[in-house]
Amino acid sequence: MYGFVSSVLAEKGRQVYTIPRAATVSEAVREMNEKGVGSLLVMGERRPAGIFTERDVLRRVVDADRDPALTRVGEVMTRDIAAIDPAWHVEDAMRLMTERRLRHLPVMDGDDLVGMISIGDLLRWVTINQEDHIRAMTEYINGRA
Amino acid sequence: MYGFVSSVLAEKGRQVYTIPRAATVSEAVREMNEKGVGSLLVMGERRPAGIFTERDVLRRVVDADRDPALTRVGEVMTRDIAAIDPAWHVEDAMRLMTERRLRHLPVMDGDDLVGMISIGDLLRWVTINQEDHIRAMTEYINGRA
Repeated sequence: MYGFVSSVLAEKGRQVYTIPRAATVSEAVREMNEKGVGSLLVMGERRPAGIFTERDVLRRVVDADRDPALTRVGEVMTRDIAAIDPAWHVEDAMRLMTERRLRHLPVMDGDDLVGMISIGDLLRWVTINQEDHIRAMTEYINGRA
Repeated sequence: MYGFVSSVLAEKGRQVYTIPRAATVSEAVREMNEKGVGSLLVMGERRPAGIFTERDVLRRVVDADRDPALTRVGEVMTRDIAAIDPAWHVEDAMRLMTERRLRHLPVMDGDDLVGMISIGDLLRWVTINQEDHIRAMTEYINGRA
């Protein structure tokens, strides 16, 4: 009904914002604010080693009384990343986000990182597509009547 | 297609987590983490005076080098709140969130605060409802064939 993850990427672009493990939380937060994103991917050798999100800042830095200027991203990032494939249906990406309460999903085509999808991107996609969908359904039903 | 905001509230519940203006950011962040929410409503006399979100923590506390234990929620909250009505269509709430890049919308019935809707709630709602919708459309089309 909403197409594929690759279509969402084609519309929003393939830009992924990354940060090295050794960067400080202060640096990461500045980058997130400047880019207007809620997460940064932390790259390992080839594949992502983790993801650093707003939730990590609240749980593992502010609430844990760590100094953002002295804490490295690698110490407080989320290591367990759920990645998706560009061939996935948008519905399946939505279901994964909902079930695991995630707000960002890296998109991997085999070993290649090809984009990042946020919960905001998906809601925007659904908002655009439902209008097209209702129009198509209405035309279909009227065409048959 | 997705019904009304009141139906989303009926499904998720009307619980709203609030915090006083005078609470510290440390207290607010602890509360957000314990409740598993990304924002707290800051209540004024009767109506909400503001909303305190993860984004405020990143922009106005961490990036601004403020000490969370010494900063009051009232100093760093977001004052400009977009509220919605329970009679709104879910689509309109989705559109407002997308256009203004919001992730939380207080639901006001006149002067009464009756709930809070997050972007996660809406994505979950869409995920549940699209399955019902596709089934209904398929049955309708098959019924006419």
